[in-house]
Amino acid sequence: MRVYFDNAATTAMDERVIEAMIPYMREHYGNPSSVHSHGREVRTAIERSRKKVAELLNTSPSEIFFTSGGTEADNTALVCGIETHGLTHAITSPIEHHAVLHTLEQLAKKGKIKLSLVNILPNGDIDMDHLESLLKDNPKSMVSLMHANNEIGNLNDLQAIGSLAKSYDSFFHSDTVQTMGHYEHDLKSLSVDSIVAGGHKFHGPKGSGFLYVRKDKKIHPFIFGGAQERNMRGGTENVIGIVGIAKALELAYEDMQGHRDHILSLKKHFIESLKQHIPDVKFNGQSGDLEKSLYTVLNVSLPHSEENAGMLLFNLDLNGISASGGSACSSGATVGSHVLRSLKADPSRESVRFSFSRFNTIDEVDYTVQKLKELYSVVV
Amino acid sequence: MRVYFDNAATTAMDERVIEAMIPYMREHYGNPSSVHSHGREVRTAIERSRKKVAELLNTSPSEIFFTSGGTEADNTALVCGIETHGLTHAITSPIEHHAVLHTLEQLAKKGKIKLSLVNILPNGDIDMDHLESLLKDNPKSMVSLMHANNEIGNLNDLQAIGSLAKSYDSFFHSDTVQTMGHYEHDLKSLSVDSIVAGGHKFHGPKGSGFLYVRKDKKIHPFIFGGAQERNMRGGTENVIGIVGIAKALELAYEDMQGHRDHILSLKKHFIESLKQHIPDVKFNGQSGDLEKSLYTVLNVSLPHSEENAGMLLFNLDLNGISASGGSACSSGATVGSHVLRSLKADPSRESVRFSFSRFNTIDEVDYTVQKLKELYSVVV
Repeated sequence: MRVYFDNAATTAMDERVIEAMIPYMREHYGNPSSVHSHGREVRTAIERSRKKVAELLNTSPSEIFFTSGGTEADNTALVCGIETHGLTHAITSPIEHHAVLHTLEQLAKKGKIKLSLVNILPNGDIDMDHLESLLKDNPKSMVSLMHANNEIGNLNDLQAIGSLAKSYDSFFHSDTVQTMGHYEHDLKSLSVDSIVAGGHKFHGPKGSGFLYVRKDKKIHPFIFGGAQERNMRGGTENVIGIVGIAKALELAYEDMQGHRDHILSLKKHFIESLKQHIPDVKFNGQSGDLEKSLYTVLNVSLPHSEENAGMLLFNLDLNGISASGGSACSSGATVGSHVLRSLKADPSRESVRFSFSRFNTIDEVDYTVQKLKELYSVVV
Repeated sequence: MRVYFDNAATTAMDERVIEAMIPYMREHYGNPSSVHSHGREVRTAIERSRKKVAELLNTSPSEIFFTSGGTEADNTALVCGIETHGLTHAITSPIEHHAVLHTLEQLAKKGKIKLSLVNILPNGDIDMDHLESLLKDNPKSMVSLMHANNEIGNLNDLQAIGSLAKSYDSFFHSDTVQTMGHYEHDLKSLSVDSIVAGGHKFHGPKGSGFLYVRKDKKIHPFIFGGAQERNMRGGTENVIGIVGIAKALELAYEDMQGHRDHILSLKKHFIESLKQHIPDVKFNGQSGDLEKSLYTVLNVSLPHSEENAGMLLFNLDLNGISASGGSACSSGATVGSHVLRSLKADPSRESVRFSFSRFNTIDEVDYTVQKLKELYSVVV
């Protein structure tokens, strides 16, 4: 059996997404900036995709900008948000994705901003009192806090953070890469200034993404060149990526509740089976709590065992199970997750992130628990 | 008949490129940064692609970085080349692509550099004496001059510019978007510090590109995030784009001379037919000279006619012929080409860029000349 439980790293593309993209590889190859018929038919596909994304997120097409992925979108929001609005201070957390953390650290290193890290509670949640005190000392900040943590699944209350940021005249950017396509984002009511998406996290193509920026917080471009994306991003558009991400988001919204129920049933069964079969199993962050965490992520903390120390992911892989030790973007090493380090997780225990999609099955969960039982049989 | 003569804007994908990409849409969907088997099979495809590109360009894989396209690659080379090497002056020309021109203008506007524009001769060539005098006054500059102009087809002598730049301790970046896949680039002998490619200009996918940076001129990243591309570009890789651009370059090199001979025969026939049938036809820049210009581009200057004034591209489009007034990235308007403006082209004449690929035929040339004859019949 081959089991893919690393859906927070990337997901398999939906066949319907592939089918939507292929005509733009074969028949419709014009440059969308060209005014002739070859170009216009492609321009239409891009603008139809933008309209679809905007409709699903309950916002205007003029606030959606397609990018090469979530990371470029985060970089754009942070670098250009800070520059355009003349901000000199930023607040983020030590457990953000590197697309946010490294970008802000770089700006701090260059002397463009002072960077403050908000404290994280032992369960991985943000210390909201500390956030408020940081904002009180530094109004007019860039606040960048993710919607859901990609490793431990903690969900931040965007509404609470957003209204706090607003009351201190700050720009609130949220890396929503892990929740886009899995949770509804209603941008008419959500108090964020910018959010981002990476298509490959919800069964769309890698290399596709978008950035939403609220109209009244307009920022200047990150990549200069042609007049594409209403002068917001130079470069011939990745047409298949744009068509693909819009189709993937459409499919995600078509049956979000169904996917969620299915995945939650897998996660619930996984948690119960682990508790039943692996003594002293624990869950990192909030991921063991079905209510309070991203339903796609379960970060399991396993007791120390000589046989599996530093080898657990490898042993799972030998059994056909793909899981991860942390973010794939941090090179997938078992050790060295900056998130678990921030939570002061016991380094003698093994941590594995299992992350799910609508394509996973209960049998795959049972198979994985069975293999974990076998791997831990020596010591348990 | 439907004729696509806008191959400098973008090209149709080669079916063999599409076939190479599709397995990475369907079967191989892992994140290349993941260490498990789903990830490793994708990592292998990326590194195989990098090795292929490096081999074809006679350089090392460690000097090739995949990007979302030529524009991002140009931005990276210029912004990060200037920053990493502490340069305070840049030299470019007024007829560069906007990916270069707007990026440098932006840096100048922010006060990061002083920008000098090298003079252009009436035929569109660079005034090399002026370039030398600019370098003499400003050693340690960023010199950014394209290999071939995308509108008028003029070819710059990279070797001459490169050795001049080197003797004045400068960084030489060349936007090679129009020549990659159409001319051989031997990076062991070519004296450039960085060059770029956009896959869709040689029958690869849109949204794919790469940047070459010479080892001893290493620059820091433009997009921060994960450790992808040897820490040079954060963000999950556009795997299908990478596989596609490498395959497209491989196909281009497989029979470059054959493609060139075919396209040159079309261009020669086009020039001769136009001269025979359209009185007072002229060619902008060097594009009418088969020896001295990019063989894929012919920029035609047609005499004034009331019926076609400002409408020629539209009239061609009505007849099924896709051509352009300038760069697609400049929104494709007939008027407003910054290149033709720099050459002081007579604004009362109509300029049309016809650009060719290996998929074009002699019949398409004959059809187009016939339509031009009809459109100009009233006045000629």
